Amino acid sequence: MPIRHPAGNPPFNIIRLSHIELGVTDLERSRHFYVETLGLIETERVGNSLYLRGVEERNHHSFVLTEMEETAVIRMGYKMASEADLDSLKAHLDGLGVESRWGEPYAQGRTLQAQDPFGMPIEFYFEMAQVPRMLQKYGEYRGCHPLRIDHFNCFVPDVQAVHDFYALELGFRTSEYTETEDPDNPQIWAVWMHRKGNVHDLALTNGVGPRLHHVAVYVPTALHIIHLCDLMSTTGYLPNMERGPGRHGISNAFFLYVRDPDGHRIEIYTSDYLTVDPDFAPIGWKLRDAQRQTLWGHAAPKSWFEEGSLFAETAVSDPTITAQPIVAP
Amino acid sequence: MPIRHPAGNPPFNIIRLSHIELGVTDLERSRHFYVETLGLIETERVGNSLYLRGVEERNHHSFVLTEMEETAVIRMGYKMASEADLDSLKAHLDGLGVESRWGEPYAQGRTLQAQDPFGMPIEFYFEMAQVPRMLQKYGEYRGCHPLRIDHFNCFVPDVQAVHDFYALELGFRTSEYTETEDPDNPQIWAVWMHRKGNVHDLALTNGVGPRLHHVAVYVPTALHIIHLCDLMSTTGYLPNMERGPGRHGISNAFFLYVRDPDGHRIEIYTSDYLTVDPDFAPIGWKLRDAQRQTLWGHAAPKSWFEEGSLFAETAVSDPTITAQPIVAP
Amino acid sequence: MPIRHPAGNPPFNIIRLSHIELGVTDLERSRHFYVETLGLIETERVGNSLYLRGVEERNHHSFVLTEMEETAVIRMGYKMASEADLDSLKAHLDGLGVESRWGEPYAQGRTLQAQDPFGMPIEFYFEMAQVPRMLQKYGEYRGCHPLRIDHFNCFVPDVQAVHDFYALELGFRTSEYTETEDPDNPQIWAVWMHRKGNVHDLALTNGVGPRLHHVAVYVPTALHIIHLCDLMSTTGYLPNMERGPGRHGISNAFFLYVRDPDGHRIEIYTSDYLTVDPDFAPIGWKLRDAQRQTLWGHAAPKSWFEEGSLFAETAVSDPTITAQPIVAP
Amino acid sequence: MPIRHPAGNPPFNIIRLSHIELGVTDLERSRHFYVETLGLIETERVGNSLYLRGVEERNHHSFVLTEMEETAVIRMGYKMASEADLDSLKAHLDGLGVESRWGEPYAQGRTLQAQDPFGMPIEFYFEMAQVPRMLQKYGEYRGCHPLRIDHFNCFVPDVQAVHDFYALELGFRTSEYTETEDPDNPQIWAVWMHRKGNVHDLALTNGVGPRLHHVAVYVPTALHIIHLCDLMSTTGYLPNMERGPGRHGISNAFFLYVRDPDGHRIEIYTSDYLTVDPDFAPIGWKLRDAQRQTLWGHAAPKSWFEEGSLFAETAVSDPTITAQPIVAP
Repeated sequence: MPIRHPAGNPPFNIIRLSHIELGVTDLERSRHFYVETLGLIETERVGNSLYLRGVEERNHHSFVLTEMEETAVIRMGYKMASEADLDSLKAHLDGLGVESRWGEPYAQGRTLQAQDPFGMPIEFYFEMAQVPRMLQKYGEYRGCHPLRIDHFNCFVPDVQAVHDFYALELGFRTSEYTETEDPDNPQIWAVWMHRKGNVHDLALTNGVGPRLHHVAVYVPTALHIIHLCDLMSTTGYLPNMERGPGRHGISNAFFLYVRDPDGHRIEIYTSDYLTVDPDFAPIGWKLRDAQRQTLWGHAAPKSWFEEGSLFAETAVSDPTITAQPIVAP
Repeated sequence: MPIRHPAGNPPFNIIRLSHIELGVTDLERSRHFYVETLGLIETERVGNSLYLRGVEERNHHSFVLTEMEETAVIRMGYKMASEADLDSLKAHLDGLGVESRWGEPYAQGRTLQAQDPFGMPIEFYFEMAQVPRMLQKYGEYRGCHPLRIDHFNCFVPDVQAVHDFYALELGFRTSEYTETEDPDNPQIWAVWMHRKGNVHDLALTNGVGPRLHHVAVYVPTALHIIHLCDLMSTTGYLPNMERGPGRHGISNAFFLYVRDPDGHRIEIYTSDYLTVDPDFAPIGWKLRDAQRQTLWGHAAPKSWFEEGSLFAETAVSDPTITAQPIVAP
Repeated sequence: MPIRHPAGNPPFNIIRLSHIELGVTDLERSRHFYVETLGLIETERVGNSLYLRGVEERNHHSFVLTEMEETAVIRMGYKMASEADLDSLKAHLDGLGVESRWGEPYAQGRTLQAQDPFGMPIEFYFEMAQVPRMLQKYGEYRGCHPLRIDHFNCFVPDVQAVHDFYALELGFRTSEYTETEDPDNPQIWAVWMHRKGNVHDLALTNGVGPRLHHVAVYVPTALHIIHLCDLMSTTGYLPNMERGPGRHGISNAFFLYVRDPDGHRIEIYTSDYLTVDPDFAPIGWKLRDAQRQTLWGHAAPKSWFEEGSLFAETAVSDPTITAQPIVAP
Repeated sequence: MPIRHPAGNPPFNIIRLSHIELGVTDLERSRHFYVETLGLIETERVGNSLYLRGVEERNHHSFVLTEMEETAVIRMGYKMASEADLDSLKAHLDGLGVESRWGEPYAQGRTLQAQDPFGMPIEFYFEMAQVPRMLQKYGEYRGCHPLRIDHFNCFVPDVQAVHDFYALELGFRTSEYTETEDPDNPQIWAVWMHRKGNVHDLALTNGVGPRLHHVAVYVPTALHIIHLCDLMSTTGYLPNMERGPGRHGISNAFFLYVRDPDGHRIEIYTSDYLTVDPDFAPIGWKLRDAQRQTLWGHAAPKSWFEEGSLFAETAVSDPTITAQPIVAP
């Protein structure tokens, strides 16, 4: 049985995914996309970095865009339940031989930064600067009314191994998964794992990696996504609309995938379900079930299966990036 | 039987209601309401007048706001099918003893202006300056995404008389009406009349008049109205929200009534039905049927029954304004 | 200039498209599709025919499904303004040498039936049996809450010729059209024509014909279409979902195309715009403008361009069916 | 400072509210309301009890309706993280002198049943029979498409005391609260407390109690609530529509309050926000801020402030039910 859940809780508590930092090549151009078009709230600009958040978020940032020469994903951040949890997590990573270091990124408290054993740059913190919540400042709503960051989705060459690490060592739970057709020895092809109690904080998908497949924002309804389609397609962003709108079989969410001006993929996402029950039995899908991709049977474009964003400091020549997809999508 | 339809078509063709000019006391304040909040498109400002339109309208204006010392409704405009129809209409009004005169309001062609026999300032034209349609300029959408002007609703002291004039002399058809309870001799209390093929271009309601009860804009869906509620209630316009949202029994439309900064009432309106069939049998409601007001049973506030906008040049002391409501609402 | 409008009104008044009769091979199977799934209201079953209508329709039928050995489109019906208009139309068709005959189809009054000069079976009537309107019987709503029939769309080999007939002889007006790229001599490739005052009652598209491309029903909002996608894709109708949902550039409507169990194509359609102004200037699109198809850039499947329903009594070997598409789609 | 959070986690983990049992006087009549109208899924009927769930729920029941002579609220259920947590909770309640006993209600595993110190019948369990999830069985959707149970809201005479018990002894966290105007010594008037990470599992409001004010179901969008209004108002349930639809200031949720055939109040609820961060600072509202009730300024009817459902076995003459509201609403 390939899906694993921790026997108990680990000695620390990761609350949820929290933020991502993306390297972009033209900050103004990216601001137009994320703020003017998607509708994220601009918290502030500091140096070459723009700090953004969703309308319901009181955290200082869930998206950080930093202007640099080459695009990359710089860090994926998770919020811990307390300062003490940070120390427990550090001890745990030390015990596993995973190197980590303390940092203090702008507007965050003490932050534990590491590469996970598969080359993904992750960081953990408890405290972040708080700013006004805009949820009832409807005059500030723009674009698709993004409420909050929802999840990361990453290409990894060995989904089982990464799943095992996040499940057994970090306490993530699995809500859904895809497995290969082989009746005797099915392999996990993709997996949706969570901490915060909805379908996922982190999804893993079989592919050349590690690379970010996408980061998602949660919006109120499907009509907000339809409006974003209308908006993007008539304001010069038609080439940035990659896939959707549609209904995923997996997660049942209504989705749209767009690419930012540097090619980073953003999912606009709504209407998944509650997964807080510890005995929630993961929902399995067979790889050849076309409705797992979209309930409505639409094919995804080739780019959606193949393209992703590299993590900074992780060369694709890195020995961790060798496996090819077990099964072609 | 109080509802009357013309035996045939009159010798001219009124296509639809088209525009309204409202006197306002502070043009900037009104611009913030109509453009920034409701989302009407600003065509241009000329002198003390601001010309606005809905996102699907190619006509130069459907709303004209003119700064003046006292608020008033200055004119209610209707579009004719041709220039020749204007002349036929003039001859018809002459024959009825209704005085009319030619004018050429800004951005309109030859325009026939009159007071109807009940004191309401109406005008008719065929040609108006055309401007770009914004329907697919989604980047310009604001507020509740108003598509177009939909109808006028007026208080009049003698609904039957005004109905007869618009039906028998001008060719309006009735879609719905309210009548008093008296089984032997029911009186029309309110009536919804149209030319363009939906529920109404002009509604008449029993009350001290003539006064404008409201002018309506059509929006895409109920969710756009809900967003406007959220927007107005958090940007200083809470006192301007008078009634709704709700579902009218009459017309089945989803509605919200708001007051502009001068107190003119605007209905935000969606989802009525098609009435193009000449043999469409008007739908009658009894006055005591609470669901005619809203299907959901909500009471309307007193102001909604009592307050309206005066027409310029029509003093309430005018002899045409004498009748009181036949039945209290 | 290929788009033509009548110099004046013809001596009769076609109000709108009204109904269609489709030959189906299994009435129970079709009932499950149209009534249980789409949500049309069943008026009654008489013999081998099932009479259906939308929730706002008081006409006895807008869809007639008749069980027969082979599928076909049997008749496309239009409502006239009066009985006298029927006689005027008959005289007009006689004058054009278009053969017509009187009939009295079930639940309709005197009906003028003809093949138009291009082989399409059309009929005209004024009177139809009236039945209760279900618009406010929300307990009877099913599926996508279809309000009413909206339009026909037909493949024809010579769009210009059919356009000219419907425009100059029958009084249809053009709202939008597609033309070929040739800057000196652009050809009409498709055209949207109306009588009732929205985007179309009848669209014509370049192709092997005459064949019905689709018939459309109007629904309240895009969310009703999304629900239908969810419903069809999980109740065995996934193969019947052919294209969409999406936003047409032409008409700006939100659409979904589905195929009934016999392959007849139904468009689920919402949110077009008002076209009642006689001087509405048709909107032209170039054939290579991908956004005319969908604003969002989605490609339509091959079947959508090639497949259609034959009209009964019209063999494809008929000499009227010879032209091939001027330009490949 | 009246809002209290536990210093650490209690030695057990309450995951979320889970289910409610309501006494009803006519099971068929209640089935028509909850299943045919609201759209809850019927799991099964056993004896005099009907077991229902939302479309995304795999638990056997979230609503249990039991036919009895007098209406009452029989039990409010909470799910624990494990069987061991049940034992820890029992020990904790024993230590507090709160009497509890083991039971095994139908389709549940070992269940700890108690009256809380304020007279409310609560129960805790880890295991419940699992049944098929209907989330992607769209053909089974009815009414307002209820996804899941969301929260309980109870009248209690001493909000501070009940808050302290649920916060300090059971580990509930506060998302929002209302307090009286007194600047020096504000009193909590109402409080929203959660375990599952959205706005609430349990709200407490100042009033004669303990009584259930309402139990809520979560639905996908505001349009589903509007459809329920249309549906109820035209199928004989108009008198059961008590308040709304509207937008709460508190929680920002879109709501409708309806009464079941026995008068139990059900909230139809959507679109609140994520509260999983342990350092989420509760949002305070002053009692006189009308927008806390609804952002749009609508008044709630008197019944909404005064009426509630008694708990079985709790007579209102019980000494715990003595305090009157600190401040009139």
